[in-house]
Amino acid sequence: MIDVIAFDADDTLWHNEPIFQATEAQFAEMLSSYHPAEWVRERLFATEIKNLGHFGYGIKGFILSMIETALDLTESRITGAEVRRIVDWGHEMLHHPVELLDGVRETIEALSGDYRLMLLTKGDLFDQESKLARSGIGEHFRAVEIVSAKTAATYRTIMKRHAVAPEQFVMVGNSLRSDVLPALEAGALAVHIPYFTTWAHEHLEEEALQGKEFAVLQTIGDLPSWLRQV
Amino acid sequence: MIDVIAFDADDTLWHNEPIFQATEAQFAEMLSSYHPAEWVRERLFATEIKNLGHFGYGIKGFILSMIETALDLTESRITGAEVRRIVDWGHEMLHHPVELLDGVRETIEALSGDYRLMLLTKGDLFDQESKLARSGIGEHFRAVEIVSAKTAATYRTIMKRHAVAPEQFVMVGNSLRSDVLPALEAGALAVHIPYFTTWAHEHLEEEALQGKEFAVLQTIGDLPSWLRQV
Repeated sequence: MIDVIAFDADDTLWHNEPIFQATEAQFAEMLSSYHPAEWVRERLFATEIKNLGHFGYGIKGFILSMIETALDLTESRITGAEVRRIVDWGHEMLHHPVELLDGVRETIEALSGDYRLMLLTKGDLFDQESKLARSGIGEHFRAVEIVSAKTAATYRTIMKRHAVAPEQFVMVGNSLRSDVLPALEAGALAVHIPYFTTWAHEHLEEEALQGKEFAVLQTIGDLPSWLRQV
Repeated sequence: MIDVIAFDADDTLWHNEPIFQATEAQFAEMLSSYHPAEWVRERLFATEIKNLGHFGYGIKGFILSMIETALDLTESRITGAEVRRIVDWGHEMLHHPVELLDGVRETIEALSGDYRLMLLTKGDLFDQESKLARSGIGEHFRAVEIVSAKTAATYRTIMKRHAVAPEQFVMVGNSLRSDVLPALEAGALAVHIPYFTTWAHEHLEEEALQGKEFAVLQTIGDLPSWLRQV
């Protein structure tokens, strides 16, 4: 009998990665007189990964990584006006409307009567709280957990804190690496709802999933019927 | 009978504001050919406050506010090399050693046997977790709560989550505005331990405290004896 359903947020409840990708495209375009777009993207990704251990996830770290990459790729010849454009993109990203994926509102509303719903996301505390507030579905979640990383230990801590047994806890998300695998390792159930695009950092080697059991659903709208047959 | 003692982190357990102030001084120095230091500081503070609602607290937002202020104050004439210096200061701040205030280690160790200790701080989730990990005192805290703001509602939610009555909960911190006043409003006890310097944003009008009762201690080392006579 399932008690708690925990949902990832970015690209599970609302669109996120496309906002980063659109900014990345503008960034590559801005630096196109210096370097080909593919190389700009590659260097930006390398800077993001290098900075992940210092900045954590989120838009502010992404803006800083863009600025750093632009300095690196232009040997600091980037102009103040160009830096300004990057800073402005950051503000636009932070104010981007929160767009729910299809079926999210109805499904969350429908499930909130029968289960304890939890929002369980990694990322910047401030960004995620702000997005949840703007999402219009915040009232349906009994708990909100924003964490700096999603490991098996994270899931164990959270299940303990909310007094739920692993076999009564389902994690629902778009990332095999952050949502599915570590939740399974902690003894919980997991549902993978693939999003059409995934940040390279969230990719997982296929072999890591060998012998694992979890559900793959096409959309969040398939979740209620899946829950009825668990 | 006190059950939970919650501690603020920055400038209560470890030094923080001086790191920001030292960077601010370097920033004013860098822009000294454009504007007097006092004006640079004033504009930086105005930018920080403007951005607080978009960025939240923390080092990444501070770096971005410095870059934005530099662009504003130089009409975008700031050079790439100067932007690079700001970014580098950010990395230095993020890697600054965590220096505990005098008496913190002994007091926390001594109290951890008799009370449930909680770290309760606002700020950037990633920064604060990283500082706690490096502080060497993390094991003494039974709970860590990193929040985006400290209002009376925040305190009520946290006391409820940890099943502690307000009259058995003490908040200890250096900020009248974030630690003392909202904790009192939520019915808890509060101990103010002033730090030698306070970020302007944390200043509080005296009248807000009229009729309020709380303890003021000179150092955290005075806490155990205060607790014995509560």
